[in-house]
Amino acid sequence: MPTLVVHQIPVCPFSQRLKILLALKGIPDAVSHQVVDITRPRDEELLRKTRGTTALPVMELADGRILKESMVLLQYLEDIYPERPVAQREPYRRAIENMLCRMEGEFTGAGYTFVMNQDLAKRDTLRENLLKIYARIDDFLRQHSTGEGPFLFEEFGWAEAVFTPMFMRFWFLEYYEDFQLPEGDERYARVRQWVAACKAHPAAQQVSEEEIVKLYYDYAKGAGNGALLPGRKVSSFVFEPDWKGRPWPPKDKYRVSASDAELGLGIS
Amino acid sequence: MPTLVVHQIPVCPFSQRLKILLALKGIPDAVSHQVVDITRPRDEELLRKTRGTTALPVMELADGRILKESMVLLQYLEDIYPERPVAQREPYRRAIENMLCRMEGEFTGAGYTFVMNQDLAKRDTLRENLLKIYARIDDFLRQHSTGEGPFLFEEFGWAEAVFTPMFMRFWFLEYYEDFQLPEGDERYARVRQWVAACKAHPAAQQVSEEEIVKLYYDYAKGAGNGALLPGRKVSSFVFEPDWKGRPWPPKDKYRVSASDAELGLGIS
Repeated sequence: MPTLVVHQIPVCPFSQRLKILLALKGIPDAVSHQVVDITRPRDEELLRKTRGTTALPVMELADGRILKESMVLLQYLEDIYPERPVAQREPYRRAIENMLCRMEGEFTGAGYTFVMNQDLAKRDTLRENLLKIYARIDDFLRQHSTGEGPFLFEEFGWAEAVFTPMFMRFWFLEYYEDFQLPEGDERYARVRQWVAACKAHPAAQQVSEEEIVKLYYDYAKGAGNGALLPGRKVSSFVFEPDWKGRPWPPKDKYRVSASDAELGLGIS
Repeated sequence: MPTLVVHQIPVCPFSQRLKILLALKGIPDAVSHQVVDITRPRDEELLRKTRGTTALPVMELADGRILKESMVLLQYLEDIYPERPVAQREPYRRAIENMLCRMEGEFTGAGYTFVMNQDLAKRDTLRENLLKIYARIDDFLRQHSTGEGPFLFEEFGWAEAVFTPMFMRFWFLEYYEDFQLPEGDERYARVRQWVAACKAHPAAQQVSEEEIVKLYYDYAKGAGNGALLPGRKVSSFVFEPDWKGRPWPPKDKYRVSASDAELGLGIS
């Protein structure tokens, strides 16, 4: 019976981090996830709990206290469920892990800026910008990873829990931007190996490519967080109809603007 | 005999965090600080150690391995010198501490953007922007701080080690922007108390207002990291002549551009 509740947006990458951590610890049900419908005005009771702030996810403790910020929540779960440690404990290894995780903010920002871009002229620059960060991660892994496997250390761990949800969100770049790490290019060989192993790991199978591509259609058209695009009445983040029954959206984000009907939305 | 060396820029706020932490632990000499002259081309040997990256500070371990990122270094020192813990150990308190520290990046960015601004028309917006963040920190402290004292918890600790160097750097805002937290305004009463107590703490007396104001003159004129301003031959971050012997710079950054001679620079 979970006494911890996480309030999150649909397919929230930050909440997926928590789910991955708990899966690695063998306690996937330790937290109850409440998905907030971001296409509607925020619930009054939740707003009261968060003192008016709307950023998600937030974690509600059994006594009603609220914690925020995905990395803070991740550490909190690591601390209260210490039995199977996921974060490194040895100081130097912990520092290496933390250094890699410090690169995640810029990486995520570059990917989201890219998918939300609507200016065809900026596309190449945004692609190059993201590739540079992949190359830096590649270099970091070559320098610091231990052992022969694909992960930073011997096993899928803390850094992988942090990055994998973003690798999976970036399916929206493959679909809407034809973005791929250039094959056969040595600058990305190590990070490509890491990304593939992270996405394939059993602890990280909470979302699918199809779900990401369908729900993030509005991001690809420049509208984030449940905001409505011109001419549209329904957000791609809406709960009903479920994404499984909707058609795949058009890939060409720069020239095509799909209607609600074309996206399978608004049929009640 | 320290086996750890930190390479840092002059009056580096991130390195001051490490010094504060070690002072709190009672081992101020556990790390040797090497100040890099950022007004000259970077030393080849240091560049080789950092694999070509120029971001400072970096920490060099006894065996030559390099760690980067101030929060990573702070955690590393906390881990290898655990005798007097500075970070909170209880999970909830640790989460609160981490949440507050997550606000530091935006706070620092707002202050540095403000001091480096050269457009008089943007001044009020930048001031308001910074005040909003102070108000958020104020609210956070009212909600979460324990006990009757001025700090987040009972004593000057981890969050204070993180923020205090920035409170001290912001002496440049008092001097060059006449920035003060509005007196008698309840929105800032709690954070004002925190800032004052942080600046006064014995573990945090590594820099003075005079040193900050004199060294950061070029920042106030829009040039960061040892870059040279038009018409100037010497950076305000130069080692010689020492800041103690230089005059106080002109306060009016928007209308006055002091010469090397007026700043007491370039006299060899």
